[in-house]
Amino acid sequence: MSGRLISVEGGEGAGKSSVMAAIRAAIESRNVEVVQTREPGGTAVGEAIRALLLDPAHTIAAPAELLLMFAARAQLVRELVQPALARGAWVLSDRFSDASFAYQGGGRGIDSALVAELERGFVGIKPDLTFLLDVDVRQGHARLAGRGGVRDRIEREREDFFERVRQIYLQRAAAEPARFRVIDAGAEQAAVVTAVTAALDAAIAAWT
Amino acid sequence: MSGRLISVEGGEGAGKSSVMAAIRAAIESRNVEVVQTREPGGTAVGEAIRALLLDPAHTIAAPAELLLMFAARAQLVRELVQPALARGAWVLSDRFSDASFAYQGGGRGIDSALVAELERGFVGIKPDLTFLLDVDVRQGHARLAGRGGVRDRIEREREDFFERVRQIYLQRAAAEPARFRVIDAGAEQAAVVTAVTAALDAAIAAWT
Repeated sequence: MSGRLISVEGGEGAGKSSVMAAIRAAIESRNVEVVQTREPGGTAVGEAIRALLLDPAHTIAAPAELLLMFAARAQLVRELVQPALARGAWVLSDRFSDASFAYQGGGRGIDSALVAELERGFVGIKPDLTFLLDVDVRQGHARLAGRGGVRDRIEREREDFFERVRQIYLQRAAAEPARFRVIDAGAEQAAVVTAVTAALDAAIAAWT
Repeated sequence: MSGRLISVEGGEGAGKSSVMAAIRAAIESRNVEVVQTREPGGTAVGEAIRALLLDPAHTIAAPAELLLMFAARAQLVRELVQPALARGAWVLSDRFSDASFAYQGGGRGIDSALVAELERGFVGIKPDLTFLLDVDVRQGHARLAGRGGVRDRIEREREDFFERVRQIYLQRAAAEPARFRVIDAGAEQAAVVTAVTAALDAAIAAWT
């Protein structure tokens, strides 16, 4: 089977980490190589860009933030995703281009046409399957607060920012139902993982 | 008089520093505030992006390099250039968008339409006046070598890269003669500075 790109999207505290681990295990159980990565990041220069982006000490204008996100993504696609797909591996990414539509488009208010232009010009590929872990903004934040730790530059945004992020994610999922699986991430973690792996199994069955 | 944006472009070893100093002095002698900056850089996050871009240890795909250049530029425009122009200051920049057409477009072979798309979407302003310090690639490199020091990631490119950079700069100057002044930077430094300040005086006289 040829390579596949699977992304996991969702707001803060949506439980992406557990879901990523479950997806990875489910694919590996089929004896398929999995390359797990994250955005922004996943390459040496991408991780350096991530550090810039998340540093609360930095002042970054919204258009510059968008370009940095796409710089990291352009590098990730060329250095990691394309070679992995070419050798038949499956790439599992914690966020991909949808996140820029949601965070920089919805959250920061940048025209989505500009985001789409960057996606077309500098990314060129879309995930085969995207899990949207959808959770109420306050519930997600309560989970995040429960974890402790220092909030990064983007996590420090106000609640209405994350409400806009959530709405854009839901709109994108509604517009591309063949690619998206919307998972109720407000449920118990075990139920979320069960829902994701069932949806993954069904998608894989449809591919083969 | 309202603010003006003046850029200085040119290949390696073209003598930009002396010319920048002369332009600055000439403007300040007219009691106009000058804000001097450089690309990539000029802001806190822009200088951090510059460090990434020039670090010889980094592997950066051409499209990611282009996006990083525009991220630094988008920040520079919003944080420094626009506020300066709004209060009537003149901004003097060591490189601006033309450099991306020359280096990432000409040098790296990225489609100039993609560079133009970024300029339109994320920069929105053009210099009022651009000095192109044109020098033979070998002569420029000999000067650079004479200076000593370690070459950065971009300075390590091969001669044909810089030849393409030079040709794109010259093409852009030919296409926009009202904005560009092409200066023979292969001449003695004093003659270069004299040519630049004479051209600057003429441009200012035409503006007022």
